[in-house]
Amino acid sequence: MTSPPLSPRPRVTPHERDPHGAGPAELAPSPNLALDQLVRERRAAGESLVHLAFGEARLPLLPGAADALAAGARRTAYGPVAGREHAREAVAGYFARRGLPTDADRIVLAPGSKPLLMALQLTLPGDVVLPAPAWNTYAPQAALAGKRAVGVPVPASCGGVPDPAALRTALRRARADGLRPRLMVLTLPDNPTGTLAPPELVRDVCDIARSEDLVIVSDEIYRDVVHDSAATPFLSPADVAPDRTVITTGLSKSLGLGGWRIGAARFPPGESGRRMRDGVVAAASELWSALSGPMQDVAAYAFAEPPEVVERLRDATRLHGAVARAVHRIALDSGALCRPPTGAFYVYPDFGPLRRELADRGVTDSASLARRLLDESGVVVLGGHLLGDDPRALRFKAATSLLYGDDKEQREALAAEDPLRLPHIAGRLARVATAFARLTGRQAPAHDSPETAR
Amino acid sequence: MTSPPLSPRPRVTPHERDPHGAGPAELAPSPNLALDQLVRERRAAGESLVHLAFGEARLPLLPGAADALAAGARRTAYGPVAGREHAREAVAGYFARRGLPTDADRIVLAPGSKPLLMALQLTLPGDVVLPAPAWNTYAPQAALAGKRAVGVPVPASCGGVPDPAALRTALRRARADGLRPRLMVLTLPDNPTGTLAPPELVRDVCDIARSEDLVIVSDEIYRDVVHDSAATPFLSPADVAPDRTVITTGLSKSLGLGGWRIGAARFPPGESGRRMRDGVVAAASELWSALSGPMQDVAAYAFAEPPEVVERLRDATRLHGAVARAVHRIALDSGALCRPPTGAFYVYPDFGPLRRELADRGVTDSASLARRLLDESGVVVLGGHLLGDDPRALRFKAATSLLYGDDKEQREALAAEDPLRLPHIAGRLARVATAFARLTGRQAPAHDSPETAR
Repeated sequence: MTSPPLSPRPRVTPHERDPHGAGPAELAPSPNLALDQLVRERRAAGESLVHLAFGEARLPLLPGAADALAAGARRTAYGPVAGREHAREAVAGYFARRGLPTDADRIVLAPGSKPLLMALQLTLPGDVVLPAPAWNTYAPQAALAGKRAVGVPVPASCGGVPDPAALRTALRRARADGLRPRLMVLTLPDNPTGTLAPPELVRDVCDIARSEDLVIVSDEIYRDVVHDSAATPFLSPADVAPDRTVITTGLSKSLGLGGWRIGAARFPPGESGRRMRDGVVAAASELWSALSGPMQDVAAYAFAEPPEVVERLRDATRLHGAVARAVHRIALDSGALCRPPTGAFYVYPDFGPLRRELADRGVTDSASLARRLLDESGVVVLGGHLLGDDPRALRFKAATSLLYGDDKEQREALAAEDPLRLPHIAGRLARVATAFARLTGRQAPAHDSPETAR
Repeated sequence: MTSPPLSPRPRVTPHERDPHGAGPAELAPSPNLALDQLVRERRAAGESLVHLAFGEARLPLLPGAADALAAGARRTAYGPVAGREHAREAVAGYFARRGLPTDADRIVLAPGSKPLLMALQLTLPGDVVLPAPAWNTYAPQAALAGKRAVGVPVPASCGGVPDPAALRTALRRARADGLRPRLMVLTLPDNPTGTLAPPELVRDVCDIARSEDLVIVSDEIYRDVVHDSAATPFLSPADVAPDRTVITTGLSKSLGLGGWRIGAARFPPGESGRRMRDGVVAAASELWSALSGPMQDVAAYAFAEPPEVVERLRDATRLHGAVARAVHRIALDSGALCRPPTGAFYVYPDFGPLRRELADRGVTDSASLARRLLDESGVVVLGGHLLGDDPRALRFKAATSLLYGDDKEQREALAAEDPLRLPHIAGRLARVATAFARLTGRQAPAHDSPETAR
């Protein structure tokens, strides 16, 4: 079995850009999408893989969404760049129900939150601060926008927001190096760590944003995937720093509609918010024109949150939490450190405590760790080096939602009292447990492991 | 009645970009989309306008396309960035039927051709050559990509391709000024002039591209809207310079599906084509992920060109030609110059011969010309200054497809033996004739004018 290209091709940075205004000389495909393609190809060639490297929610299609799509077929005209009013009203209502009263004029729809994040980076001035690790698209977008990215480590307790002390230090250093940080991206809950920053941390970081004059882009696409809202309450930076926070969201994660490409942004009130919104609409008019008309009708349906959508969000979140916690347990059992997952459908184990044993077996960094999991056990994960993390660290992201299986299995998983007891999920969890244990030449622990549930 | 913002806000150029890698300080919305929004607002306020400033095909929805969309609802997964194989195969077949055999691996789908053009500008190196006038999105995309744009006048006979002699001169000057032109965008047939460059001109310009080492991006979104294929044969630069031509296309214009956002690109064969394609796929993975899954099923349906699609393309092209020729006649009758329209659904009159009479009435450039048409007659056009044309010239683009009316009227127009005799089209043409004549204080000519057809 040959080793896959888990190390990315060198990414372009602003320093390497052609001084004559040429585009990036070389831009690697987004590593998660590239890996997903690799997995499709190897599976088509007959290999059995456990694919944990792609952030797809894997949920069955809601019939109401399909109905809204079919009914939206008549929307063949371009329509307003920001989206039609009925769809923007629905998104505004979604935010209002979450304690953020919003005028529909402050909403912009797009084919996913990804193009909105790109348009924000293209139109908001200055360089950008990112948590480290972070979702693998923020940094390449910054490079495409001619921005320099400042990665700031996240706390030991949760990801998606920089550690406040590290943030202050990094800002000071960046300014001394001639950078002009004016923008900060936060991810709540976080991809890749699967954790939600607590309110006090959000407040601390918003205070710094205020004193350092940073605009906050709060990526809240996992907001409706908080596993236990009572235990880990959600606080948006838009609640704390309303005048400087843009929220992005979408239906890809909460409703498993990634392939439909529906995203939305909520801009701050007042004049400065209007300017940011106008900038993004101007960029949108040159980059994508508008969200597809029929998909605007889907947005109007889903963001209005009729009862079946509310029920689906609840069932899906329960499933995501149960499976993420199971993989978290497997990681701990194998001797790794791992933040307890509280949102989204990811875990981010740290095999640092096993560094010596792993080094004896030739695994010395996140690239070789990810490669070993694939070559030895057919388990595909995303090495931390692809997410802005220290490449020497022994960390990776595992997307646990990919364990749910195909459409029929997804329905069973959503309906199950205890999804971990379903044979198709238990079997895959057992394979993950074996793979993690095998990294250091051990047996998967028999106690408390999903194998016993089989 | 107040004057509308027909003059754009200053557009950012690479020279004005923040040296610290900040995004554009100010980016005006795409003027056609901005005008479209203005028209919607003024109509909502009760004004009666004849809107000729937006390139929307205005055709009824094909039932087969709606069926394909509904059937595609199950495509909720992200899928490959370039698009699923069945959809790419259909696009490859579309090109093969046009004499351009194409492997499906050379096709990339996207939410419109606009994001593909942006990705090409972001990933292909060097500065860009554009025809002048040209579609109003190429230049702002160049600025967003950090490229400098070199506008080269088009011949007197047709638009969409630079005049060969002017092209040679412009390239020499640009290089002397430190620019590095490496890319040239051609539009066949052309928006805004509504004309198709003849084969000999395409050959001449491709020769220059070869000797000057320019990659050609051939925007062929109007390829299936050539009014009389026998009289004006279509030759693609991909036929002449296959190794250096990328074609972009989509379903927005031919099938009136602009609001659905379906575009495709065809890359050159061989290694250099593969590199261009990989670059665009890499950018796509960071900018938009993939074309919406259900829309890929629509692409698979439409690009396969079943009989009802072929019939629709034929009927639509006949309608577009008839109405464009009527507006062309009106322009000539009012004393303007105008290239005879041969493709798309635009005319591009030049009121230069009436400069003195217009100056007496305060109209001295394309901005004041467009404004006068709106303020005096409620006719909305896009001034040439918004399209990269000399702002002192008295030229504008009129999108004639907007005269077809609403859905029911569009069906009548498509079915009509002579659409010019339909009262709703004749009435609007009469209003255009009156507006053009009134510019110089004349009466609309009674002979050969659509008013007599009413």
